[in-house]
Amino acid sequence: MKTKSRNATIVGPALPNIPWEDKPSSCREPLWRYSGNPIIRRDAMACSNSIFNSAVVPFGKEFAGVFRVDDITRQSHLHTGHSKDALNWTIQEQPLQFVDGPQGQPFEYGYDPRVVWLQDRYYVTWCNGFHSDPAIGCAWTKDFKQYHLMENLTLPCNRNGVLFPRKIGSNYAMLSRPSDTGHTPFGNIYYSQSPDLELWGRHRFVMGTTGGWQRTKIGPGPSPIETREGWLLFYHGVVTSCNGMNYSFGAALLDLEQPWKVIHRTRTYLLNPRELYECVGDVPNVVFPVAVLADSDTGRLAIYYGGADTVVALAFAQVDELLQFLKEDSKI
Amino acid sequence: MKTKSRNATIVGPALPNIPWEDKPSSCREPLWRYSGNPIIRRDAMACSNSIFNSAVVPFGKEFAGVFRVDDITRQSHLHTGHSKDALNWTIQEQPLQFVDGPQGQPFEYGYDPRVVWLQDRYYVTWCNGFHSDPAIGCAWTKDFKQYHLMENLTLPCNRNGVLFPRKIGSNYAMLSRPSDTGHTPFGNIYYSQSPDLELWGRHRFVMGTTGGWQRTKIGPGPSPIETREGWLLFYHGVVTSCNGMNYSFGAALLDLEQPWKVIHRTRTYLLNPRELYECVGDVPNVVFPVAVLADSDTGRLAIYYGGADTVVALAFAQVDELLQFLKEDSKI
Amino acid sequence: MKTKSRNATIVGPALPNIPWEDKPSSCREPLWRYSGNPIIRRDAMACSNSIFNSAVVPFGKEFAGVFRVDDITRQSHLHTGHSKDALNWTIQEQPLQFVDGPQGQPFEYGYDPRVVWLQDRYYVTWCNGFHSDPAIGCAWTKDFKQYHLMENLTLPCNRNGVLFPRKIGSNYAMLSRPSDTGHTPFGNIYYSQSPDLELWGRHRFVMGTTGGWQRTKIGPGPSPIETREGWLLFYHGVVTSCNGMNYSFGAALLDLEQPWKVIHRTRTYLLNPRELYECVGDVPNVVFPVAVLADSDTGRLAIYYGGADTVVALAFAQVDELLQFLKEDSKI
Amino acid sequence: MKTKSRNATIVGPALPNIPWEDKPSSCREPLWRYSGNPIIRRDAMACSNSIFNSAVVPFGKEFAGVFRVDDITRQSHLHTGHSKDALNWTIQEQPLQFVDGPQGQPFEYGYDPRVVWLQDRYYVTWCNGFHSDPAIGCAWTKDFKQYHLMENLTLPCNRNGVLFPRKIGSNYAMLSRPSDTGHTPFGNIYYSQSPDLELWGRHRFVMGTTGGWQRTKIGPGPSPIETREGWLLFYHGVVTSCNGMNYSFGAALLDLEQPWKVIHRTRTYLLNPRELYECVGDVPNVVFPVAVLADSDTGRLAIYYGGADTVVALAFAQVDELLQFLKEDSKI
Amino acid sequence: MKTKSRNATIVGPALPNIPWEDKPSSCREPLWRYSGNPIIRRDAMACSNSIFNSAVVPFGKEFAGVFRVDDITRQSHLHTGHSKDALNWTIQEQPLQFVDGPQGQPFEYGYDPRVVWLQDRYYVTWCNGFHSDPAIGCAWTKDFKQYHLMENLTLPCNRNGVLFPRKIGSNYAMLSRPSDTGHTPFGNIYYSQSPDLELWGRHRFVMGTTGGWQRTKIGPGPSPIETREGWLLFYHGVVTSCNGMNYSFGAALLDLEQPWKVIHRTRTYLLNPRELYECVGDVPNVVFPVAVLADSDTGRLAIYYGGADTVVALAFAQVDELLQFLKEDSKI
Amino acid sequence: MKTKSRNATIVGPALPNIPWEDKPSSCREPLWRYSGNPIIRRDAMACSNSIFNSAVVPFGKEFAGVFRVDDITRQSHLHTGHSKDALNWTIQEQPLQFVDGPQGQPFEYGYDPRVVWLQDRYYVTWCNGFHSDPAIGCAWTKDFKQYHLMENLTLPCNRNGVLFPRKIGSNYAMLSRPSDTGHTPFGNIYYSQSPDLELWGRHRFVMGTTGGWQRTKIGPGPSPIETREGWLLFYHGVVTSCNGMNYSFGAALLDLEQPWKVIHRTRTYLLNPRELYECVGDVPNVVFPVAVLADSDTGRLAIYYGGADTVVALAFAQVDELLQFLKEDSKI
Repeated sequence: MKTKSRNATIVGPALPNIPWEDKPSSCREPLWRYSGNPIIRRDAMACSNSIFNSAVVPFGKEFAGVFRVDDITRQSHLHTGHSKDALNWTIQEQPLQFVDGPQGQPFEYGYDPRVVWLQDRYYVTWCNGFHSDPAIGCAWTKDFKQYHLMENLTLPCNRNGVLFPRKIGSNYAMLSRPSDTGHTPFGNIYYSQSPDLELWGRHRFVMGTTGGWQRTKIGPGPSPIETREGWLLFYHGVVTSCNGMNYSFGAALLDLEQPWKVIHRTRTYLLNPRELYECVGDVPNVVFPVAVLADSDTGRLAIYYGGADTVVALAFAQVDELLQFLKEDSKI
Repeated sequence: MKTKSRNATIVGPALPNIPWEDKPSSCREPLWRYSGNPIIRRDAMACSNSIFNSAVVPFGKEFAGVFRVDDITRQSHLHTGHSKDALNWTIQEQPLQFVDGPQGQPFEYGYDPRVVWLQDRYYVTWCNGFHSDPAIGCAWTKDFKQYHLMENLTLPCNRNGVLFPRKIGSNYAMLSRPSDTGHTPFGNIYYSQSPDLELWGRHRFVMGTTGGWQRTKIGPGPSPIETREGWLLFYHGVVTSCNGMNYSFGAALLDLEQPWKVIHRTRTYLLNPRELYECVGDVPNVVFPVAVLADSDTGRLAIYYGGADTVVALAFAQVDELLQFLKEDSKI
Repeated sequence: MKTKSRNATIVGPALPNIPWEDKPSSCREPLWRYSGNPIIRRDAMACSNSIFNSAVVPFGKEFAGVFRVDDITRQSHLHTGHSKDALNWTIQEQPLQFVDGPQGQPFEYGYDPRVVWLQDRYYVTWCNGFHSDPAIGCAWTKDFKQYHLMENLTLPCNRNGVLFPRKIGSNYAMLSRPSDTGHTPFGNIYYSQSPDLELWGRHRFVMGTTGGWQRTKIGPGPSPIETREGWLLFYHGVVTSCNGMNYSFGAALLDLEQPWKVIHRTRTYLLNPRELYECVGDVPNVVFPVAVLADSDTGRLAIYYGGADTVVALAFAQVDELLQFLKEDSKI
Repeated sequence: MKTKSRNATIVGPALPNIPWEDKPSSCREPLWRYSGNPIIRRDAMACSNSIFNSAVVPFGKEFAGVFRVDDITRQSHLHTGHSKDALNWTIQEQPLQFVDGPQGQPFEYGYDPRVVWLQDRYYVTWCNGFHSDPAIGCAWTKDFKQYHLMENLTLPCNRNGVLFPRKIGSNYAMLSRPSDTGHTPFGNIYYSQSPDLELWGRHRFVMGTTGGWQRTKIGPGPSPIETREGWLLFYHGVVTSCNGMNYSFGAALLDLEQPWKVIHRTRTYLLNPRELYECVGDVPNVVFPVAVLADSDTGRLAIYYGGADTVVALAFAQVDELLQFLKEDSKI
Repeated sequence: MKTKSRNATIVGPALPNIPWEDKPSSCREPLWRYSGNPIIRRDAMACSNSIFNSAVVPFGKEFAGVFRVDDITRQSHLHTGHSKDALNWTIQEQPLQFVDGPQGQPFEYGYDPRVVWLQDRYYVTWCNGFHSDPAIGCAWTKDFKQYHLMENLTLPCNRNGVLFPRKIGSNYAMLSRPSDTGHTPFGNIYYSQSPDLELWGRHRFVMGTTGGWQRTKIGPGPSPIETREGWLLFYHGVVTSCNGMNYSFGAALLDLEQPWKVIHRTRTYLLNPRELYECVGDVPNVVFPVAVLADSDTGRLAIYYGGADTVVALAFAQVDELLQFLKEDSKI
Repeated sequence: MKTKSRNATIVGPALPNIPWEDKPSSCREPLWRYSGNPIIRRDAMACSNSIFNSAVVPFGKEFAGVFRVDDITRQSHLHTGHSKDALNWTIQEQPLQFVDGPQGQPFEYGYDPRVVWLQDRYYVTWCNGFHSDPAIGCAWTKDFKQYHLMENLTLPCNRNGVLFPRKIGSNYAMLSRPSDTGHTPFGNIYYSQSPDLELWGRHRFVMGTTGGWQRTKIGPGPSPIETREGWLLFYHGVVTSCNGMNYSFGAALLDLEQPWKVIHRTRTYLLNPRELYECVGDVPNVVFPVAVLADSDTGRLAIYYGGADTVVALAFAQVDELLQFLKEDSKI
């Protein structure tokens, strides 16, 4: 067991009710799956074809989230969900609606949402249809009832826009993965800056594809977690076989003040498709992380990821052990 | 429960021995799978690699059918089958042979057969090799012993030719899905007319792709079922992910006298690949409907579909409930 | 020396005013280009981007034709043209209109027209948009003023539908080249039969790709010319290089009563892109034959072909010499 | 009718030394080519493979420009050029260098530059390598000697970033064409806003592909010209044949205050590849406009465009005649 | 009939400790799977993402082998393994290293190894990175401790180089499958000859694709087994569906002295993906044979094959029964 | 003027009758085109579609060569040609025949021949069909009358096999460019060794693609020329635009004893498609060098190259000037 009393690694609030399951003794890796996976099945809602790639956050003493729900027309929507334990979720049947928004900036469709608490409210980002092409949409809410649509954060084509949980320097900060209009065969991670979450610039390249599981493309996963040693970023990576794309995920540690500088980065994946709910589904062989809960007291991390573009699953890690692994794996 | 005594929706004979299983109480959809699925496994025959996309009809007091059997060279053949209950099938080891046929019109290979009773005999249509390219082949039989090959109904490239069970106006009628020579990335449904099942013309566009599960291509499934409100057509739809094509199916209601006019059409699919025998097999993630049994007394429908291009499976619906669903879903 | 008194090879009327230029002494091939090529330039009309792949016929004592005119939006139209000498053409500024036609059978767009005199009128066939996909459209006219739209002759996807100039047996006859929705990478020639030009069937495979210049696809050119020895068909063939498709053309001799039987077929092309107006233009490296004038008295042939999908050009041949070449070339 | 005395259409300075050639009497179109085309040949410099897609502006009493020069390694560079008459150009042998620039924002490569006078200096935008992928680079100069590199204006992948010549509302404004990493098969025009030319947001869709010559993709050409009726934008459009992409160009009129609103747009192209220097070269069949000189006194426009990705060519128009054409063509 | 006392079919040593399981009574095919499959799971090693396509041989009284281990970076390595029963394997954590090798001939990566005892030592061949492209690498060992790297046996691009277990005529002999740099869509089997295992020539075509399961490509599997009737070669075959490539395997009998002459060849596959460990994994729907153990006393064969590019599995056959099947299947 | 009396750079015989034209004064590059280009037109023979990519050598006091002639079926053949001045060529109408050859090693087709004098005879290599796929064929002749077919030098897929003019160390040596079955999108140059021109091994990577004009693939051109400073190799390089592949050529200097070591290599091309006969033809935008004549007395080089895959053209260089350029260009 790695942590005692007060863990000083994670910069952030304690989350004593974080879902948790101790690491199985047989497990040699820094991440382990929840035994109750998948926590949300594809037919959890009357209208759902699949529920996956969804974002959860602490909300008061409980939890709230924005879920990617593909309905049985196979169109993507964002739905609000609530949970007491972050394991059993009640997702609202109606997609979330916006109470206001900028003129001429419609919400077309939404998928792969991220949610982050930033200063005084929650920001939701997602892949938003922008004249049909993918771009980064954004909205804010304080109560997960009323959502306020904002300007798109990027031009097309972009997916996986992820906000940092605080300003860096005097600016808000975002990671994103520029793409094309379809099943993009390339993808690197970029960093962008903004004084107001509306105007963006001073873009920086963060990191790109290498080889193995992260050979075809990579993209940011959940909002980065601030640690004493840097921003902890989970990111997905893709390799292409003769039978299509295979999505795994790893982690990187980014410089606290200049997050486009990569301190460490996993050469190995942390999780890859192995369980039936990850290998079989609408898109076989996908694990795709989009949210992390973190408890600064214990260093516990609960990583939410989509399985086979069909279900929501959960994995656990302990932050110090993970950072240690990251350092060593980075060196190999 | 929807029907009592005599159901007046389906125009056609009663079929008291239609296979049936009541809808599970947990099921919220208009279609439900047979609990004994798949009803025909891939290795049901000595020579079979897979048995799927097959057509069954009432035959006397029992049932007969034409089955797509891919042998262990992975070549496609049509085989005759018989059953007392339409669940347990005996399929002949030898592919069906033709006792006669037009000069210079060979049978090259056959897959995805449909069978329909039309006036005084059964007509079988299938995807027939026409100088190696796909076209619509046709034959007739009265006894499922002697098959008489007819002229090809179309030029290449076409798949999924489906005859209506009666003349419309003074003509026989067919739906088909023009294609290309390979794994066609497009597909709409067209209507064609013929005085004699040999000469065809006055083609009409019926319906095309929209979005979601029916974004890449659509094609007709079983021979349409005549109802008081229109022709009930089950049709397959395909969406393409980064890991290939995903086949679901829905339904449409076509005008009785001008079947190229679509009265209703499902926005949602009725069934999509979820069970292991639908998601795992020679072609993962395929459900493909090719036959329906209908009992006009009760309004019961038994839909036969292929799973993963590997097995034969069965689903049930009640016609009034289905039409009601179709109307409402069409409106959304 | 070409012919004397009465040539008995071509079955058809004399055409004393056929355009003609003697074969240059340096020419060793059975076809030679007109020295005034191209006879119609791309900007011959105010609205034209290009004029090519167009069909001409004798009309009274003069000539008429249907021209493919791509306007400066780059959309394809059919235009009527007239000429006294079949060299200098006046093309009407307005696309041809239809005075009537079947319900629910719109003209969407038209390209690559063919015109043939059949019994008592002219029939025009072309590639017609059928719910945006290519199919064979048809119309008739007696005066090149009033055009009567008919039913589409085929389902999509088909291009290059060509009618024979008389019934064969008791049926009208057509050659066509099934295709896909785009820049089709395959193509064979098929034969179809009809009692009324509306209902078609008894399709037969005629001939397919071989190698060399006719390796990627082949398709019928002008309406076949009846000769004592068979139907003389000019057809285009395509080979694909690392810089795209290259269109040449050759000829075949088809059996008079069973035209799906090929008696001879050129192994070599008769003409391929060599001149600047064939190699440079909207689609480089295309020669595409769509019409032939024939004089049965002299055996003279004037072949009209498109150059680089941009202009109309003309070549000449003498029928006996050509048939002799065809026999010998076929044997090699 | 060409205008007399003072033309009131163009909002901007007079340019009495604009290069000019009267419209040939035979010309029916609103644009006509310069008789001395191409004005810059591919081998105009010792090191040049090709010089094309280049931007020129009035500079003092003469002219200056930034030229795309692909050297004989076939790598793209930006070079400064000077001219007295805007026809005969002296291009510096050395690529332009930057005297300063933001940290961590390198110039990787540059192609397809645009130059615009904005407030008090010239801004140059181009397609800049951003970790090898295409993005919009920017720099400013006052003297065409010292160039100051600025932040990239966009994330990858983007090409054809074009600044408006003045602020609109309180913001600088840019048009751009999001793309992918290669020979992009899609492309629409978007509008973006910035208070400082560094931070960008409030993106709006302006216009997308339609059909014909602008079916595959479209993108902005030169910096828009302010007229009394709206912003006059020349833009390129692409259609794809079986032999590759064909680039033409047309024009649009955008709302003065809300330039993402399109008032008029040519259905026809204004210029397409017809001359040998447009049809033959490193990339056959390309005309690509990147700069316009405008004389508000006479309404004369001189449009500079690349030919076949190999040379620089010039065309002329008169603004009133062009706007009139645009209105009428838009209506068709 | 299984054979008793001394089987005279296999030319080679007895292997009394060959792993074995009698054929299930329900099995109608000449091959049957081991009930304990997969024998090596993907996570059998601490570092392994997957272990598959691996080669085993008798080694003293026990067994040794070279295993393809893809580590959790998804890079391929060769590892030595040992086993007493050829079922339970101990694989060394460290990839195998070479004690020497030719100058300028590096080992870049290794996958799909084969091992064969030839004269006085074991030779290992594999797909070796040759300046990143696939070629056939080779090494020898006598003790599975010290490996001696040899020259690459081929230029790129080649995969599946397989040595015969003895000289044929005066030469060493190899089968291989030329490929391209990626997920090669073609593949035939060729034969090459060498006096010294370093210089190769006198290449001969052996066999190519046909149809069905062996339509896209074929390639040699394990080192051929010498029998009285010819070389018994197991080979893989691939067919491509709309969801990717499907790998099965069959067998051929090659002439003993002129192995490029095929005596028999299965029209049907012997094994294809049906079990979950063959259909689900990193590359769904793959069975890929790379090693065979043979006992000449009993005619027993134990075939080792990869499942879904993820695990190692085992199947059994009896040589006489298999040869009989091969003859009959070849005739069909 | 570069050379006087005796030039000591080229190791080889004098060739006083080498074709030659002095460098135009306006030319700044080390290579210049012959003013009489193309020296062989596409229709130089009765049967020829095109004549290009052909190899010439001194033969007695005159010249001989092997020519790629694509006939008017568009199939490739090798033809013998003779010339007194190496400018005006007489090519035999009949393709060259082989008087003998190894069993089971047919000549299928031949293109892109090279010829080299080696010890006591001429060796011809070419791209030979090997069961339809491309491989390196070889034959020898002493008189350009009797050709003796040898074993293929490589397995498929390979093109552009080029022999060195003498043994290096104790082995014959070859450069080649492994490829795939079609319009290969990759290509590097490899070196292979042989004691007898039949068995090959000890392959070495020589050089690969970089960027610019040599970004897609590179391949060896003529047989290397021995100089005091190394082997002078002309090689082709390809870059791909949205309109296909563009072939240029450059040069490299290889180590005399270890030719897989590159001493210098042009960053710029030496020649690229600019003239109409290089830009327009069966494959637009191709210059492809296959032969060089060299005069050791004067250092003159005459480089024969194919234009647009249609004609034979000629360029000149002086060896010292070229080597000097190569050194300097290599440094940039």
